[in-house]
Amino acid sequence: MSTLLIKNVNNNDDITDIFIKDNRIEKISEHIDKGADRIIEGKGKYVIPGFINMHTHAAMTLLRGIGEDMSLMDWLQNVIWPTEQKLDEELVYWGTKLACVEMIRSGTTCYNDQYWYLPAAQRATSEMKLRSVHSYVILDLMDKSKSEKLKDECKKMYDFSRDWPERNIFAIGIHAPYSVSEDMIRWASDFARERGLLVHLHLSETESENLDSLKKYGMSPTKYLDSLGALGPETLAAHCLWIDDDDIEILAKRRVKTIHNINSNLKIASGYRFKYKELKEAGIVVSLGTDGCASSNNLDMLETMKTTALVQKAWRKDPTVLPMEELLSLSTLNGGLSLGIETGIIKEGYLADLSLVDVNSVAFTPNINFLANLIYSANSSCIDTVVCDGNILMENKKIDEEEEIIQMVNKLYKKLL
Amino acid sequence: MSTLLIKNVNNNDDITDIFIKDNRIEKISEHIDKGADRIIEGKGKYVIPGFINMHTHAAMTLLRGIGEDMSLMDWLQNVIWPTEQKLDEELVYWGTKLACVEMIRSGTTCYNDQYWYLPAAQRATSEMKLRSVHSYVILDLMDKSKSEKLKDECKKMYDFSRDWPERNIFAIGIHAPYSVSEDMIRWASDFARERGLLVHLHLSETESENLDSLKKYGMSPTKYLDSLGALGPETLAAHCLWIDDDDIEILAKRRVKTIHNINSNLKIASGYRFKYKELKEAGIVVSLGTDGCASSNNLDMLETMKTTALVQKAWRKDPTVLPMEELLSLSTLNGGLSLGIETGIIKEGYLADLSLVDVNSVAFTPNINFLANLIYSANSSCIDTVVCDGNILMENKKIDEEEEIIQMVNKLYKKLL
Repeated sequence: MSTLLIKNVNNNDDITDIFIKDNRIEKISEHIDKGADRIIEGKGKYVIPGFINMHTHAAMTLLRGIGEDMSLMDWLQNVIWPTEQKLDEELVYWGTKLACVEMIRSGTTCYNDQYWYLPAAQRATSEMKLRSVHSYVILDLMDKSKSEKLKDECKKMYDFSRDWPERNIFAIGIHAPYSVSEDMIRWASDFARERGLLVHLHLSETESENLDSLKKYGMSPTKYLDSLGALGPETLAAHCLWIDDDDIEILAKRRVKTIHNINSNLKIASGYRFKYKELKEAGIVVSLGTDGCASSNNLDMLETMKTTALVQKAWRKDPTVLPMEELLSLSTLNGGLSLGIETGIIKEGYLADLSLVDVNSVAFTPNINFLANLIYSANSSCIDTVVCDGNILMENKKIDEEEEIIQMVNKLYKKLL
Repeated sequence: MSTLLIKNVNNNDDITDIFIKDNRIEKISEHIDKGADRIIEGKGKYVIPGFINMHTHAAMTLLRGIGEDMSLMDWLQNVIWPTEQKLDEELVYWGTKLACVEMIRSGTTCYNDQYWYLPAAQRATSEMKLRSVHSYVILDLMDKSKSEKLKDECKKMYDFSRDWPERNIFAIGIHAPYSVSEDMIRWASDFARERGLLVHLHLSETESENLDSLKKYGMSPTKYLDSLGALGPETLAAHCLWIDDDDIEILAKRRVKTIHNINSNLKIASGYRFKYKELKEAGIVVSLGTDGCASSNNLDMLETMKTTALVQKAWRKDPTVLPMEELLSLSTLNGGLSLGIETGIIKEGYLADLSLVDVNSVAFTPNINFLANLIYSANSSCIDTVVCDGNILMENKKIDEEEEIIQMVNKLYKKLL
């Protein structure tokens, strides 16, 4: 058992102490007269829930800046896919470590990953003490010969994941309806459902994906997946940019969770009309992600929040759309809800996943509205201290292993060029 | 005469020394064997031109976060305008100082301002040693009784500006075609042209402004201004969001400079379809600004660059739109071109306005593509050292007066609430 006491921290409109026992917030009160193994003085700082990055490919930090301002197919075929062929376990391990440092630095305490060399990604994340979901990538490109191999490996990975710490969760990744065969989609969905696993997939990211689906199956990707029985409350569907009213009805009925990734959608020109209002009105949980660094270049959830709100306001021609408290929920609590993890809120009984924000800077001056300053004015350099699962991952902007990780990646990435 | 030598800095694809004499870059070369009054070791850092924020209302830093997620008219009538009534010289002075710190911190060395209490704004800027253009706000709300007073004060301000240092430039601000009477627009345009002054105005920021203009004058705001003889190469037109082909033809013919302010346009839902491609093809100079902190919350040009590119790519459905080198020009060289100042490029003979970028961070790892990392991955906390007009304004992320300015603003802003 370990205990951590955060003293005198600004917590919404109050100043409180926060007592953490093991990995949960045990008590929040004006004064807590208790000893603790570790005490953090929070005076002048603000506490916020840790962000949850609901869609990324963490080790793609390695590909940051490798192809820029290119058309999608040129970029994928001539840069990303050939480079990914050169990946190995060591690269994914260090790329994931780099991603973890980046996420910790910007206040993210939990992330939903889908990438190759899953054991390496989980090991890196476990060492960095972040909370995570790692989905095993099922991508057979309609090639039946790959299916059996994937099924075997998936089973092995699932067995292997039973030794993971509780904060790292194994999930099934069905890459996308256009890249996975019908048989594999059915198998993976059943496999997940029988074991109570989450399923992480890409859905209706681009317009052409939808047009292809209509041509091939006579229905939208959402309808197609539903016809295979692949959608359910365990489904975490990234993007959902090109969906219509019928799709929304299906997603609502199946209680699918949706994930919006604005920076990636903008940068590779997938689109920007994410139907937040309609999804919300249909009762569908929406959360936010950054996508991988090859497409969006960083893993910064504060930046993601700002861009999300700004684009929604402009597209809907209404500055009152997506007010700040709601926006904060999208990047915290709604992630927790989607993953079924009690995180994303500073509340007694919830997991101790939180950040302290340093407001002694121009970005927070004047300090009339903390949340407005955090989301619209500051950048993630305001994140001062990060606690995840009761462990201190960053204190006073220092992360122990950072320098070593940067050096290793700067040495290793050349294998990819 | 003073000299400054920057050693061993990454400069595009080379490593060079940069020798600055007084306020200009005298020599750029691999090795410069010269003594200097000050030497900065640039090893491992990258040099970039200082950013030029081409449209802001600097002292509105004071209103940061004061009204959020509100509809435009509610926000203006019930928050911004009543609060601005309480402004005074002291508040504008300290608000501008705060803005200067924020701009220096984020690598901006020159800004184009339009705000009340111009002498206070200029004094603050001069003390902070930033380059600036201060336009005297002409806004008579069609009230003839105000006109004579404005004309007198404008003349006085112009005379007063003759004592300013060369790096602070006096200009004429015609607030907008909908808020200034025909007589005043004609007078101000003539006043500016006779004296060779720049004219800074808001143009076609909102759809309703255009509809009102069509109703009232039977023509677009651009055509209306042109019919008054108010457009010329001296015109710096902010926003230009709602313009058509005819407007673009006029702007091109008059050699008007246009300024795009994406974050403000998005946040208050003015629009996002800035016709960069059409303006560029018509040969019109485009530059970037942040607008004031009441609407866009910060003065961060790096963030502005990223959002600009992302929104253009998504709206045009083409990820190759606005490649990085071009984007950098919009926030540097094109500002200099628009203002007629030899700044915005690291080049012998040009003004010594530049920043050194610290790349020893996750955001720049791996360092495959410096510009991609700067624009798409990093935030402005990477700006390490800033030189403007040959003076060092920030070194190793330290600005002398910062702490004092933050404290003063935190004390004074309460007068506005």
